[in-house]
Amino acid sequence: MSDASSLIADVAETLDVYPDFPEPGILFRDITPLFEDPHLLRRIVGWFTEQALGAEADKIVGIESRGFLLGVPVALEAGLPFVLARKAGKLPGETAIIDYALEYGSAQVEMQSDGVGEGDQVFVIDDLLATGGTARATANLIENLGGTVCGLGFLIELSGLPGKQMLESYNYNTLLILDASV
Amino acid sequence: MSDASSLIADVAETLDVYPDFPEPGILFRDITPLFEDPHLLRRIVGWFTEQALGAEADKIVGIESRGFLLGVPVALEAGLPFVLARKAGKLPGETAIIDYALEYGSAQVEMQSDGVGEGDQVFVIDDLLATGGTARATANLIENLGGTVCGLGFLIELSGLPGKQMLESYNYNTLLILDASV
Repeated sequence: MSDASSLIADVAETLDVYPDFPEPGILFRDITPLFEDPHLLRRIVGWFTEQALGAEADKIVGIESRGFLLGVPVALEAGLPFVLARKAGKLPGETAIIDYALEYGSAQVEMQSDGVGEGDQVFVIDDLLATGGTARATANLIENLGGTVCGLGFLIELSGLPGKQMLESYNYNTLLILDASV
Repeated sequence: MSDASSLIADVAETLDVYPDFPEPGILFRDITPLFEDPHLLRRIVGWFTEQALGAEADKIVGIESRGFLLGVPVALEAGLPFVLARKAGKLPGETAIIDYALEYGSAQVEMQSDGVGEGDQVFVIDDLLATGGTARATANLIENLGGTVCGLGFLIELSGLPGKQMLESYNYNTLLILDASV
């Protein structure tokens, strides 16, 4: 197997899966076991870093809070600044905020206005691409601040959900693609 | 200056300070600029790693969500497993939970039961030691699961608040101590 396919297999084997969490009908992929294996985690961080450097990023944005777990070590390995995309109300100073639709209701993502600026090439990191709402909103927020989203990276993508279409105008990569319905 | 005192000075200079955030009367220390400087962040991670290895830790616990930003790179540098302490309701599977008092009301910390076990020497990481409630609850939760808290590390400690007394039975270190009232 290539390095990438052996990494994919190791990630798939290490993940835990919980039916009906956080609510009935949802099959929850638990990434926490990946963080208990520092050797595997280093390889995962290496994969994300390759994606970010390949996209010629000069800044990493991680989406709260599981995107923080992956984004900071990637930024350190790539030698790039790390900027936080948070749920609304948690960041001080001048901020920019964006609303996006959820299945029921809406949510918000917020960033500090000086976190991203004109000409920045930003690579966005999160753990999971499902409906794509948060990732797309974060990308749009970065653009509103004058930055360019040169790429996005996800640990897991659930196929059969709208994430792929939501990000069709972006360059994104996923380490492990799983069927949402299985 | 020694490496440590030059690091402390650089952290103090890089932090942003916002009065009246998130509510009137609170002087908010914003650590996000530290994450935009990968060289400085590497030195900070190095300091935490020294504390963790000096305490003979074999596991790192990071407290949601700013403890995630620091805990994962420290675990990677130390070559140790990283375990999450989260707000209640976010972790699947068998978990353990602990309540603790806030100024008004209460809060909860939750961990997966298999995240920490008998004989584990756990080092706990968070960004800020203020009243000490969350850190103390996390330490007690680790002990409830059979682990030993060999140390705790904080980026910032606000002196003049009860954090120091709350952790008096533990070995903890803080990089930068600031006066809560200034």
